[in-house]
Amino acid sequence: MGPHPAVAAIRLAVRRVLHDILTDLTDRADVTGVPGPADGGARHRPLVLVACSGGADSMALASALAFEAPKLGVRAGGITVDHGLQAGSDLRAAEVVARMTALRLDPVESVAVRVGREGGPEAAARDARYAALDEAADRLGASAVLLGHTRDDQAETVLLGLARGSGIRSLSGMAEVSGGPGRTGRYRRPFLHVDRQTARKACMVQSLAVWDDPHNIDPAYTRSRLRHEGLPALEKALGKGVVEALARTAQLSRDDADALDAWAAEADASVRDELGQLECAKLYALPPAVRRRVLRRAVVAAGSPAGSLFARHIEEVDRLITGWRGQGAINLPGRVEAQRQGGRLVIRQG
Amino acid sequence: MGPHPAVAAIRLAVRRVLHDILTDLTDRADVTGVPGPADGGARHRPLVLVACSGGADSMALASALAFEAPKLGVRAGGITVDHGLQAGSDLRAAEVVARMTALRLDPVESVAVRVGREGGPEAAARDARYAALDEAADRLGASAVLLGHTRDDQAETVLLGLARGSGIRSLSGMAEVSGGPGRTGRYRRPFLHVDRQTARKACMVQSLAVWDDPHNIDPAYTRSRLRHEGLPALEKALGKGVVEALARTAQLSRDDADALDAWAAEADASVRDELGQLECAKLYALPPAVRRRVLRRAVVAAGSPAGSLFARHIEEVDRLITGWRGQGAINLPGRVEAQRQGGRLVIRQG
Repeated sequence: MGPHPAVAAIRLAVRRVLHDILTDLTDRADVTGVPGPADGGARHRPLVLVACSGGADSMALASALAFEAPKLGVRAGGITVDHGLQAGSDLRAAEVVARMTALRLDPVESVAVRVGREGGPEAAARDARYAALDEAADRLGASAVLLGHTRDDQAETVLLGLARGSGIRSLSGMAEVSGGPGRTGRYRRPFLHVDRQTARKACMVQSLAVWDDPHNIDPAYTRSRLRHEGLPALEKALGKGVVEALARTAQLSRDDADALDAWAAEADASVRDELGQLECAKLYALPPAVRRRVLRRAVVAAGSPAGSLFARHIEEVDRLITGWRGQGAINLPGRVEAQRQGGRLVIRQG
Repeated sequence: MGPHPAVAAIRLAVRRVLHDILTDLTDRADVTGVPGPADGGARHRPLVLVACSGGADSMALASALAFEAPKLGVRAGGITVDHGLQAGSDLRAAEVVARMTALRLDPVESVAVRVGREGGPEAAARDARYAALDEAADRLGASAVLLGHTRDDQAETVLLGLARGSGIRSLSGMAEVSGGPGRTGRYRRPFLHVDRQTARKACMVQSLAVWDDPHNIDPAYTRSRLRHEGLPALEKALGKGVVEALARTAQLSRDDADALDAWAAEADASVRDELGQLECAKLYALPPAVRRRVLRRAVVAAGSPAGSLFARHIEEVDRLITGWRGQGAINLPGRVEAQRQGGRLVIRQG
């Protein structure tokens, strides 16, 4: 008799990602001459870490990694991050370390971080967490760090992006691979197509103790409100397929956004004169979706912080091209100014 | 003292659209020699109709059209469609005719339709309604038909599209201009940037009686559930800006989808051999977002009905290119088959 279907599902998801990681390592070894996994010696076996909060999603991930890694000649370790946001968080981190050790992960570490305030509580906690994971992965020489985000997390992320109304890039959710340029990097999300219920079930049938993150049920957190009120109401109105539909939207939007970014990068050179200035007539001839991306690139290149630049800013700059009636300079975040001068669009920091 | 802000807002929205309509008519007259609005004679003054259910949105629209049209030399008329779905719907239609007449719209008509069953109750009612509006516009020689969809309707439409999970085209909501190829056509939606509350307020301060469509509060209708439960819960979780963010997402997604469709149309020719067959190696080199659109075009061209073709179908065809391991022919809606043969992708109806 094989494993429970939920356990089979989480193991399959992890196995696929481990294969991808090994393929990437082999490709890299071909190029750099660094010993790849075929090298065999224990010292050279690649190390894959799981980031584990002790919640059901990441405990399921840890259990699947512990099961699959040895079969592929991969060492499996675990990191838990102590955010220090609740009393006793250090004790909890120690308990998560014990649970990961019981799964025979090695090395296993707890890393304490100090959470700042920048960007709100969720963003600050996330920044601190990734910094700690990066540091641990570098120090331990890990080839990859697995994250337990599920399809439900992905659906929530898409809705959060939708609420920003800033276009399809913000609808593209979390990437299966991130942390590097393009679609590369050390972070992998094997569970983006696995639902939360499957992860919970897998923990239950494997008798794994899990810890419910109090943030997850604290309605002060936007994501938590979305999870416990927003998404269930949407499912009631639109049917049970909403989570899957949102996750699929993420994937399609990411591909679309990548293609349009590539087009804009290519178009950028073609709309400039010999001095490198943007020509309004050539910009006008571009499709609006491409033109707005070219404008956005130019504004960011001039020093405007990407995170402060909203769709409405770019729309205003776009009207210098499409709705020209002699308007003056437009002020943009980061003291950047855009103005139209003699058929050229001049964008510079003041 | 000027009009109430709500009344000013709806009038401004209608005035802008009437200007667009007149500009288009003048452009067309330049080309065809047909007398334009400058012609002056009453018989040649352009006619613009409002589609009016008697609800607050379309009554507000009718009132603004009645106010603005004469100032621009435009005749303003109104049509109400009797769907015959409730007892007494004919009496109600007669009442809406009376209310439009009281606004001095002329001509004013009630058109009775028979609603079929195809595609579910909402789609069938919509099909019957547009067929009746098309017939009336043709018969009366109307230049345009105004529809009262608000920003709130747009937000609901985006969420309905999101629930399909079929990509950014389904996120692009309703167009400001539709009914013709591309961004042309007789239907105009002046209120896509006006919220429902403003339309209601405008009716109230103008003492216009409005009729609440019982469908709007019937939870059997998906859109109604979304309006009364789904969207309010989302707003509670994500904040009041959700409706505006969804409407902006619609606009951005529409531009993005148009640009990518144009790219796919152009790429189509470049990936075929001298016999017009699709070359797998050239398809492979396209960005995934463009490749999937080229594949979709080819499958539809081979006879697959666009409405039955889902993202998962195209993904399966795409795997013949990106994940080739000797798989057999793929069956698609409309008895269309896709298979890989000697480096070519063959798509044909069986």
